[in-house]
Formats: sequence, C-alpha cells, structure tokens
Amino acid sequence: MSSQFYDVVHRRRDVRGQFTGAPVPEDVLMRVLSAAHAAPSVGLSQPWDFVVVRDPGLRGAFHDHVRHERDTFAATLDGEAAQRFARIKIDGVRESTLSVVVTYDPDRGAPAVLGRHSIADTGLYSVCLAIQNLWLAATAEQLGVGWVSFYREPFVRDLLELPARVRPVAWLCLGPVTHLEEVPDLERHNWSRRRPLGAAVHHDRWGSGEPRDRGR
Amino acid sequence: MSSQFYDVVHRRRDVRGQFTGAPVPEDVLMRVLSAAHAAPSVGLSQPWDFVVVRDPGLRGAFHDHVRHERDTFAATLDGEAAQRFARIKIDGVRESTLSVVVTYDPDRGAPAVLGRHSIADTGLYSVCLAIQNLWLAATAEQLGVGWVSFYREPFVRDLLELPARVRPVAWLCLGPVTHLEEVPDLERHNWSRRRPLGAAVHHDRWGSGEPRDRGR
Repeated sequence: MSSQFYDVVHRRRDVRGQFTGAPVPEDVLMRVLSAAHAAPSVGLSQPWDFVVVRDPGLRGAFHDHVRHERDTFAATLDGEAAQRFARIKIDGVRESTLSVVVTYDPDRGAPAVLGRHSIADTGLYSVCLAIQNLWLAATAEQLGVGWVSFYREPFVRDLLELPARVRPVAWLCLGPVTHLEEVPDLERHNWSRRRPLGAAVHHDRWGSGEPRDRGR
Repeated sequence: MSSQFYDVVHRRRDVRGQFTGAPVPEDVLMRVLSAAHAAPSVGLSQPWDFVVVRDPGLRGAFHDHVRHERDTFAATLDGEAAQRFARIKIDGVRESTLSVVVTYDPDRGAPAVLGRHSIADTGLYSVCLAIQNLWLAATAEQLGVGWVSFYREPFVRDLLELPARVRPVAWLCLGPVTHLEEVPDLERHNWSRRRPLGAAVHHDRWGSGEPRDRGR
C-alpha cells in the first residue's frame, strides 16, 4: 500500500540538464512548500524560510557566481578528474522555472529550543529535513529539483538581502523537466558510484575493520 | 495522484509516547533503510551509515545519558517553562522496538567531493536528507520514529565504537505505535506553536521589516 510513496523516493533525482522552463502553477508550488513546512524540527522551532526566486536578474547574478566557483573547484583537480568534471553540468539555474532558497534562522524559538542545548547543529538539521520533504513533493508533482552548492554563503546572503543571522542552506532549482534520469548524473559520467546498502548498515556497534582502540 | 505521498508527509509525527515495542519485520526495516539510502548526497558521496541498535544494554546506557542531559536542560529553565517541560516526554528509547543511529563520515568520497569545496557542511546536510527519507518511509510502513537529541556526541561515539572521524547525527527510535498524534507533542503541551506557511515564504528577497542596511 506504500508503493506510490516508494516510487517517489526512488524516482527522485538531482536535476541539472532536464529543465524545460515551463510554468509551475501556484497551487502546485504551495503544495510543495506546504510539504516542506510539515517537516519535523528540533523543539518545533521550524527554523526554515523559503525565498522563491523568479527574478532573472537575481538568478543570472547567482549563475555567474556559480560559474566562478566551478572554476575554483576545477582548478583543484588533476588531469583525468578535470576532464571528467568538464563534462558534468553542475546547475540548471537559468533553465529551470524558478529557484527556492531555503534558509536557517537560529533565533527562531530561541533561547530555549528544546533539544538543541547539547547539539547546536540540530537547527540546521531541521532545515535539511524540510528540504527533503520539498524535494520529494516536487518529484510527486512530476517536477525536478537540483541542489546547487557551488556558492559562497555570504554571496547569497547579500544577493537576497538576508539578515546577518540567517544562513542560506540550499539553493534549489525547481520546475518541469523532460524526464528524470534513472541513474544519477555523477554515476553516468563515471565520477562516482553508489555503494550497496549492506555496506552502510551496522548492528549494535560500528563493527570491525576500523582503526580504533578496542582496549575496553 | 500524489495523495498517498502527501498523506505520509502530513501524518508523520515525532513519536515519544506511543511505541508498543512490537517486532519490526526484517523486510520492512530493509525497505525503510533502502529509502534512506536512496537520498541525494553532495557529490554522490552517500556519507551516511546506519547503526541498528537492538541491544538492551546499549539502549539502557543511552537512556541514562539522555535523562542526565534532560536534567541539564531543565536547570536552564525558569519556573513556568520548567513546569511545562516537566510534563513533556522527550524520548521513547526503552519502549520502542529498536534504534537507528545515523552517522556522518567526512572521508566518504574525499578529498574531491563535488559540491563540497565551498560549503563544508553539505556532507552533514546529505545525512539529514537520508534521515527524512527514513522517517517518511517508516511512516508509510505504519511505524513511528522519534529523534532524540538530548545527548552529547562523544558519548554516542564511545558507546557505539564509532571511528573518531565519524559523527553521530541522529539517534532515532523506531517501531510500531498505537497511533500517531494529529498535533505535535510540543504544541499539545503548549511548549510552542507552529507558524503559518505564509510567514515562511518570501519572494525574490527576504523583504522588509528586518533590521538590515538597505542602502544599496
């Protein structure tokens, strides 16, 4: 009975090259943002905000910045990796219909955020849970999402006039797509491979084979 | 056509008090972990691991630690807040069927993790996306999940014998429940309230009303 749910989870891709630029109806966008807003959060602080960016000037300025950061990363790669990287499209900022920038406000619910006293990052974690809800909801709506992370946070803070305390967590490109690829781009381009689930599952303790002092 | 998906998103709760302790079939657990493992990740690094903790001794030791951290937080509250907090159950570690500890390994895919050069935290963000997939999948399977964050990371690292570089990101209680509440615990207990979506949505820029220099 949960097949439709799992279909969404496994169909979801990180989209770069398949955006069509077709319109996103307002009611669809609101359903997607409502899903994000329904995420769990530490102390019920809901520390996220969603900046819907449609303005071509803002998206163009961000895209120029991303290209610069792409060059910065490319310069760290050696010959063969550099060649593989050159073939990889890293963003769909211009081709997608719109962007949603998801931010973190540490003052939301402060000072006594229940559950955040011992781990400061739990507020950021909550924002990411909202992002995944957004991503899956967009997939359920037959839209594509691409998370662009080739940027410097202060640039985005200035561009979108975020308050100094507010941290941009994700720049998401969103919109209709021609299709979703079955295999992630980075695997198709031989940049990296997915590992089997079994390698990621441990029982009770991390297990053997790790260089750790076991003398206790 | 996406109603089943949205039903899962909006039914999901952060569970403390409704765990029954009934068994979780292995195939169900594997579907839930497969959903987590299908999350997007920066540079396709998949930097997460899942430690399935069933051992009562380990869970008991963790629970003792959580109680201590609960007292630490309670001591920071003034009279009225302390009284409200005293009524809130903060974990279901003992009552739930099992725990899943989700961790972050910064060495996965390193050194050249595509998309992580400019924002170091993107690896942690990926782990949180996996956590939300896990949470929703468990909800689709009629299971409850509760994220416990009243702990110190070094304690969990020692308890589960994690390598020094690996960071515990979430301790999740998981298992069958009597029901899922319609209203979050913290709202029912008058600790905090959810805010309307409209307050979280901005267009193109953060907008007015914020104390920020607009002189440009």
